[in-house]
Amino acid sequence: MTDPQRAIDARGRRPATERDERIAEHSAGEKQEGIPFIGAGPGDPGLLTVTGKELVEEADLVVHAGSLVNSDLLERYCADAEQVTSIGKDLEELVPLIRDAYEEGRTVVRLHSGDPAIYGAAVEQMDALEHEGVPTYIVPGVTSAFAASASLRTQLTLNGVANHVAFTRPQGKTLDPEDDHIGEFVEMGDVTTCIYLGTHAIPETMDRLLAEDHDPDTPVTVVYHASWPDEDIIEGTIETIGERVEAAGYRASAMVIIGDAARKAGYDRSYLYDGWANRSSGEADD
Amino acid sequence: MTDPQRAIDARGRRPATERDERIAEHSAGEKQEGIPFIGAGPGDPGLLTVTGKELVEEADLVVHAGSLVNSDLLERYCADAEQVTSIGKDLEELVPLIRDAYEEGRTVVRLHSGDPAIYGAAVEQMDALEHEGVPTYIVPGVTSAFAASASLRTQLTLNGVANHVAFTRPQGKTLDPEDDHIGEFVEMGDVTTCIYLGTHAIPETMDRLLAEDHDPDTPVTVVYHASWPDEDIIEGTIETIGERVEAAGYRASAMVIIGDAARKAGYDRSYLYDGWANRSSGEADD
Repeated sequence: MTDPQRAIDARGRRPATERDERIAEHSAGEKQEGIPFIGAGPGDPGLLTVTGKELVEEADLVVHAGSLVNSDLLERYCADAEQVTSIGKDLEELVPLIRDAYEEGRTVVRLHSGDPAIYGAAVEQMDALEHEGVPTYIVPGVTSAFAASASLRTQLTLNGVANHVAFTRPQGKTLDPEDDHIGEFVEMGDVTTCIYLGTHAIPETMDRLLAEDHDPDTPVTVVYHASWPDEDIIEGTIETIGERVEAAGYRASAMVIIGDAARKAGYDRSYLYDGWANRSSGEADD
Repeated sequence: MTDPQRAIDARGRRPATERDERIAEHSAGEKQEGIPFIGAGPGDPGLLTVTGKELVEEADLVVHAGSLVNSDLLERYCADAEQVTSIGKDLEELVPLIRDAYEEGRTVVRLHSGDPAIYGAAVEQMDALEHEGVPTYIVPGVTSAFAASASLRTQLTLNGVANHVAFTRPQGKTLDPEDDHIGEFVEMGDVTTCIYLGTHAIPETMDRLLAEDHDPDTPVTVVYHASWPDEDIIEGTIETIGERVEAAGYRASAMVIIGDAARKAGYDRSYLYDGWANRSSGEADD
């Protein structure tokens, strides 16, 4: 009987200096031995990476994040594969399912929404599988904040408007109030604050910001299902957005962006394209 | 004679309430009329999106970010197209070049590194082109921080270790000291701080953190050229990383990650896969 909890505990206790040898052997994007944990991107099938698409197309078994992954994507790339949703399954069910398929010689992929690095819960599955002798690796993807920004025809950093970006989530069942930094990010004034996992909590989040005396007119832009066919954009402010999103009825799957950058107003020309940056190495190395 | 500066100034003054109609008409990932500003991803050609690849393959003229885009990607997807680097060209040169090609009926794409939303300087080019009557749009991509995280086989958010992520850059010629928030992000304790455009400034950045009394043993992980064939990873701490990166000779093109998440040590199992989240809608909607 597999015990994912023990594998995770063991990994958590391992000293940080003991590094996985594969980190030096492989670079991101390489296909490797084992189960790829693939970022499916924000929704649109065309926003999956080329490598992600190839791996999904080759798979016999696709374990995916249920309704968080666009069914059009599954239909387009793996209609003939067995498809299993992870929603409603705990690690004790998922890990043996993936391990057994792998040991039977099947080609298995794990498809997460967005990019696994951002609120992905991929690592715990990977460690549990590695403990069972099943190698794993990550194939990065496009996160929903980038799709939202593209839909809004703007950038999350914008010269003279926003110099930094925070990916954050609000307090709730899985985050203590003292670890909720939304007010601190907004207070900085030049941070575009992107709230994940917070659609259901927009009114409370905005009420807290008002109670902390943040400017009620600060722009807030909500992008529901960025890059999906039913994508919807709701604009408002800290004061008005809660009511507007409630009226629209969205309780999940929306990106909440606080800050002026989502409106693309008032920015300055950067120095990147006036011959200036070329005199200063390292200033243009995204 | 085109005047990109005037176009940008005009856009900057436009009220934030006057929204581009195409925002409601199109969702991210859709191919649209005009010039796509495509996120090329972190480097590996397989980490370009499917739609990005299709657009680059169809192009007659690819205007790309020079050495910031992997030449293997250009070789694989657009070897037969005309390729022009944007490095060393100002807007006054780039904009007529793209406009004229578009008006001649050529298929033009603009290829940025990473995702255009993060330190991309795409919007100013787009506004200048729109002012010339050339429509534009954004195709999102994978940012280098996600490739770095995949290479490190970890997540940037990790339960019990890091609840939030900051994409930031250090003070310098284009950022005033008061807009440098690196110390504030590190101080929060549960933020993974990803520094872009800061390879050349690692020693000064770390010296400032030491002067602000941050724990000198805080882990710092530097991923040079994430997902490129010459990807390299240097580990250290706030105290040691500056010297190590200087010894390696990197002055650009590295992602600097401050925090424990890059080491994947000490995390807790999340609630996503134990049947818990399914009772709470909206807690798993990346």
